[in-house]
Amino acid sequence: MKSYQEMTREELSAELEKLRKSYKEFQAKGLKLNMARGKPCAEQLELSMPMLDVLNSVSSLQSEDGTDCRNYGVLDGIQEAKKLFADIMEVSPEETMVFGSSSLTIMYDTISRAMTHGVLGSEKPWGKYDKVKFLCPVPGYDRHFAITEFFGIEMINVEMNEDGPDMDEVERLAASDETIKGIWCVPKYSNPLGGTYSDETVRRMAALKPAAKDFRIFWDNAYCVHFIYRNTHLLNLLEECKKAGNPNMAFLFGSTSKITFPGAGVAFMACSVENAAFIKKQIAFQSIGWDKLNMLRHARFFKNKEGVMAHMEKHAALLRPRFDAVIDAFQDELEGLGVGSWVKPDGGYFITYTTLDGCAKRVVALCREAGVEMTGAGATHPYKKDPRDAAIRIAPSYPSIKELKQAVELFCLSVKIASCEKLLAQ
Amino acid sequence: MKSYQEMTREELSAELEKLRKSYKEFQAKGLKLNMARGKPCAEQLELSMPMLDVLNSVSSLQSEDGTDCRNYGVLDGIQEAKKLFADIMEVSPEETMVFGSSSLTIMYDTISRAMTHGVLGSEKPWGKYDKVKFLCPVPGYDRHFAITEFFGIEMINVEMNEDGPDMDEVERLAASDETIKGIWCVPKYSNPLGGTYSDETVRRMAALKPAAKDFRIFWDNAYCVHFIYRNTHLLNLLEECKKAGNPNMAFLFGSTSKITFPGAGVAFMACSVENAAFIKKQIAFQSIGWDKLNMLRHARFFKNKEGVMAHMEKHAALLRPRFDAVIDAFQDELEGLGVGSWVKPDGGYFITYTTLDGCAKRVVALCREAGVEMTGAGATHPYKKDPRDAAIRIAPSYPSIKELKQAVELFCLSVKIASCEKLLAQ
Repeated sequence: MKSYQEMTREELSAELEKLRKSYKEFQAKGLKLNMARGKPCAEQLELSMPMLDVLNSVSSLQSEDGTDCRNYGVLDGIQEAKKLFADIMEVSPEETMVFGSSSLTIMYDTISRAMTHGVLGSEKPWGKYDKVKFLCPVPGYDRHFAITEFFGIEMINVEMNEDGPDMDEVERLAASDETIKGIWCVPKYSNPLGGTYSDETVRRMAALKPAAKDFRIFWDNAYCVHFIYRNTHLLNLLEECKKAGNPNMAFLFGSTSKITFPGAGVAFMACSVENAAFIKKQIAFQSIGWDKLNMLRHARFFKNKEGVMAHMEKHAALLRPRFDAVIDAFQDELEGLGVGSWVKPDGGYFITYTTLDGCAKRVVALCREAGVEMTGAGATHPYKKDPRDAAIRIAPSYPSIKELKQAVELFCLSVKIASCEKLLAQ
Repeated sequence: MKSYQEMTREELSAELEKLRKSYKEFQAKGLKLNMARGKPCAEQLELSMPMLDVLNSVSSLQSEDGTDCRNYGVLDGIQEAKKLFADIMEVSPEETMVFGSSSLTIMYDTISRAMTHGVLGSEKPWGKYDKVKFLCPVPGYDRHFAITEFFGIEMINVEMNEDGPDMDEVERLAASDETIKGIWCVPKYSNPLGGTYSDETVRRMAALKPAAKDFRIFWDNAYCVHFIYRNTHLLNLLEECKKAGNPNMAFLFGSTSKITFPGAGVAFMACSVENAAFIKKQIAFQSIGWDKLNMLRHARFFKNKEGVMAHMEKHAALLRPRFDAVIDAFQDELEGLGVGSWVKPDGGYFITYTTLDGCAKRVVALCREAGVEMTGAGATHPYKKDPRDAAIRIAPSYPSIKELKQAVELFCLSVKIASCEKLLAQ
């Protein structure tokens, strides 16, 4: 088949007419599907149901070191939970703090405290500057950008390449301005592109020479064990930071939200022992300690990292056909048409479709008007402004495969319509 | 027996010598007891063990309205949890938000957001003032004062009377200064005095005319259902605020930390619907929603407020002999000696002993040196400064009754020693 660019205006018009007819048929179906958020599907949630039997009224609720997990105390998590999540993050338990149920909350709280009190080594709270700034690799995770926007932190876009952010830009910007205080990263199966940072990217990140002495890399390793096709290798940032003489520059975040139960999982943070001591002093004002019973439930259910990896294999088996359905449809419906591009990710929760410039909003609107909710176009960028209007994040995990196939068919149709419209308008 | 004030110096010296001998015998026992924190004892924790059987691998995990409690979503809590905790707070579910596991965290977060963004009706974030201030009824809860101190909020002492804070002072101060932004209150079985605010106090609180349009009453109703001897009546602040034309002035807080499991309970906040809408918009940056499985576990375990009250009767039965042991010892050992005063509380977690002026630190030090840890003298006041050095908070819940009796015996001895020393030094 010819690409749309090779078609004459007449051929394009005929194609558009045909597409619009198919679109109307779709609208008549009255679909009501959602591919907007990276939510596990019901079958995935079922995988963790046995965890609910781990603690019961006759269980011992003492942690390994004899702590009664039912009572107050232990600010940064029980030992077995620290050990389990340290193994997952590939750091030591001393570098790990286990808090509540959401890494988003930990990241928000970390930014919030930085604004009001600063981080270790800050000359003053970030909020005392006229303006502080963050580097934001794009496309990226909307909730990261929402946090920095909420606190009035100016966001600077940095382009993502296949092997991570454009490190020339990151190095140049970080070194140029002491009000640039951090960078958001999703280093493995990135949200939403799906790629994993290369060793070189991680090494260059660890070796940054920021103008701000209190610069922090917010390393949201949300998908550290969330392989689908392949468990890709990610270099250990905390280790590289030590080697590069920047031991305190990295904050690592993770959770079991997409391992066990979103919202009812356990979230954790890793950083240098020195950072951790500083943070614990601050956090002692906010909490006496988070839910140790849920930590114990998780630690006893999984036993160790191998237990987690075996569990994630089951998740992968459920996610694989869903991701296949999307990628196969793209290949069947869109390959060779010159209407955009995509990359098949090795893991994570998203596929990014990159439309022709100026088409993403139109595609999302077409999907919505036929009953399929996508993540809003622009959501992948700070201030919801995608300068190219081209990135669309697709979340294939939640719908059934049957629904997903319908939704992707509509998506492909919408991409074609928007592309035809664009080319005809030129 | 004569009071110490009636004794001659010779009699006092003889008494002190005798007391010191007894004290040495105590030191020889090598006690290691803790009456510092309001922690439930192991028997109390046992009461909630059946709650761990409520959810298991074959349970339905849908809330009443069909929400899958295992997945993301529902920012302010599932309906049945809102209803249960609304009943406990005597407000409507629409006025109730159910969050994480700790009301301390909710209070910290509320202050933190007020500092960075303000509350509903704020002209600017509280952090943008050179200085904001809080009214602090004393003696009060150390962790409240720690939060305000952490955020650099200046704290102004207001004396507590039997029926609540000195409302003449509260009214005068609140009306005098628009940088006075709030007041900390523990209105029922107050921490640490144990009294409950009278209807008149609550009405006057609700009818305050603060200079600050964004003044807030932080109503930490931590012990709302925590009766021991008597379920005292507390007027509904939110209702009174509506009547007084101050519908948005009250933030109510509570949790199940001392109903089920400290740290692994459920915490909640109540306020006007308008306040709640404002807060939910802010909190959406911090969270996708808290642990709905734990909310479901609590809601199904208790079913309704009656279920909670029946459960609290069991707590009361365990706490009553512990409080009796302290009060009985005070009556037997200290009554009539002129060495201080105490009030038997109707509920809550604490008894306050008020020493002769200038003796509290000495009493706590004497206890510590003989192996009994008390809450630090001064902890009941902002900046840990008790101007009279007289208030000592006693937490009788955690030790066994046998241990408690030993600890209180030592405490009474320490009070007598410190009082003798003081009178002899005059």
